[in-house]
Amino acid sequence: MTYCVGICLKDGLVFLSDTRTNAGVDQIGTFRKMTLFQKDKDLFFTLMSSGNLAITQAVKEILLQGQMLNGKNLWNVDNAHDAAVVVGDAIKQVYDRDHKALEKQGIDFNCNLIFGGQVKGERPRLFNIYSAGNFIEATPETCYFQIGESKYGKPILDRVLNFSTPLNLATKCALISMDSTLNSNISIGLPLDLLVYEKNSFKASKLVTLDESNPYYKMIHQVWGEKLWAAVNSISEPSWSGANKSSAISVPAKKMGAVAIHGQPSKVRQKKAAAATLATTKKTIVKKKA
Amino acid sequence: MTYCVGICLKDGLVFLSDTRTNAGVDQIGTFRKMTLFQKDKDLFFTLMSSGNLAITQAVKEILLQGQMLNGKNLWNVDNAHDAAVVVGDAIKQVYDRDHKALEKQGIDFNCNLIFGGQVKGERPRLFNIYSAGNFIEATPETCYFQIGESKYGKPILDRVLNFSTPLNLATKCALISMDSTLNSNISIGLPLDLLVYEKNSFKASKLVTLDESNPYYKMIHQVWGEKLWAAVNSISEPSWSGANKSSAISVPAKKMGAVAIHGQPSKVRQKKAAAATLATTKKTIVKKKA
Repeated sequence: MTYCVGICLKDGLVFLSDTRTNAGVDQIGTFRKMTLFQKDKDLFFTLMSSGNLAITQAVKEILLQGQMLNGKNLWNVDNAHDAAVVVGDAIKQVYDRDHKALEKQGIDFNCNLIFGGQVKGERPRLFNIYSAGNFIEATPETCYFQIGESKYGKPILDRVLNFSTPLNLATKCALISMDSTLNSNISIGLPLDLLVYEKNSFKASKLVTLDESNPYYKMIHQVWGEKLWAAVNSISEPSWSGANKSSAISVPAKKMGAVAIHGQPSKVRQKKAAAATLATTKKTIVKKKA
Repeated sequence: MTYCVGICLKDGLVFLSDTRTNAGVDQIGTFRKMTLFQKDKDLFFTLMSSGNLAITQAVKEILLQGQMLNGKNLWNVDNAHDAAVVVGDAIKQVYDRDHKALEKQGIDFNCNLIFGGQVKGERPRLFNIYSAGNFIEATPETCYFQIGESKYGKPILDRVLNFSTPLNLATKCALISMDSTLNSNISIGLPLDLLVYEKNSFKASKLVTLDESNPYYKMIHQVWGEKLWAAVNSISEPSWSGANKSSAISVPAKKMGAVAIHGQPSKVRQKKAAAATLATTKKTIVKKKA
């Protein structure tokens, strides 16, 4: 599996991807899921991929070759929206080539991408591109996308991120989200590729590949568990007696009664009693005979 | 969907379930997923269910009626393992009755249960029972089971729980896990059914249904977000310059190079140049003609 997160903020973009792929737990591989495209000081794009690796590599190849798709490629587009259309068209081309053969093998055409960046004259933009080549764009209200094993690391993003979050805080948050995912799911693995793109820079000034020896990642991995522990400990325990009003837990719900406690059904009891009587009678008879 | 968590500890058991069911977002319902079985001071069982509601209700009905399954029901078993076998047999009975009709409709026979409790003379035990009626038991090494939407709330359980965790701390942790899930997935909903079973009590002394007005749940819901925020804030930010050694992030990985940055492919550039030359030539010709 895969876990990638892309965040679109006031000040720029954050991209983080793991590098583990698998086809069953006995076929683990290491493949990069992040690809970077740059043209002078005019445009900068990042692509992160999840899904069937043969499909996503084929899409990447079309884009890197600069094939013209309806007259466009990633180096001649006027804006990031048109670039997302180019990526979508590349997916459609791979679909046309491979989907029948995949169907015959019972394999889904599975390709889920995060694509974002900036074209001169525009703000940074971020897209989630689906298997059909269609896509949605991040907005100030929903400023991040995840692909792959997204659920473990979603709560922390939901609590911390908004459009005005500074890049450094968002980076920290993305790494915590990744660390939680790594901790709970072995199909996600180090190293991680991280790019923090600063608005209007048109370059990858903050780009790094993190493994277990990276001081910052190591610190997050160690400290986050402790911090979470401390946070849990600092919350008061439930007060079943209700003595502590703010943590009273035995307050019944308004619209729903308590869970019923089911005793042995009476029919069963009766049958059992009847069986017991019968047994006693039999025993008595046996005794009498003896 | 559903989220239920069951925890088996040194001092007893914790069971927590939500009450939302859905068949698409436009068919939301409220159904209890927790059922309790008690016999005097001899045995106490809790069943929590996820999957197809028609299936899980049918299983529950067989158990509540006390039907004999290979001569056993939940009120005459000698130990908790045999009780889990009874629950498994109930699933098999529903399967035999319904699976062909379900197959015709293209519906999976989906039934995933957490079942646990205590029989006099034994320690408390906890099982995860699958659609086939087979099951696994919790151990001191893996002391909890989740069913339904399990991923959002797994990281916090992984960080906090072990077999020696006190019941009150485990209860708090289960509620935080549930709150994180509720926050990130609308298919999980209040009220919650909570049972904290104390070892050798053979009764549901700590049983409550929590809604949004419950003081303890309300406090967790409000405070946990703040605590998480504070924990994130208390971790230092990445140092890209490397000035702060403990949070230096720009340290390259040992076995993997940096992500490549792809410029415009040279072939495309050449073609473009050729096209530009051609255009210039054409313009020149046009000019000459004009």
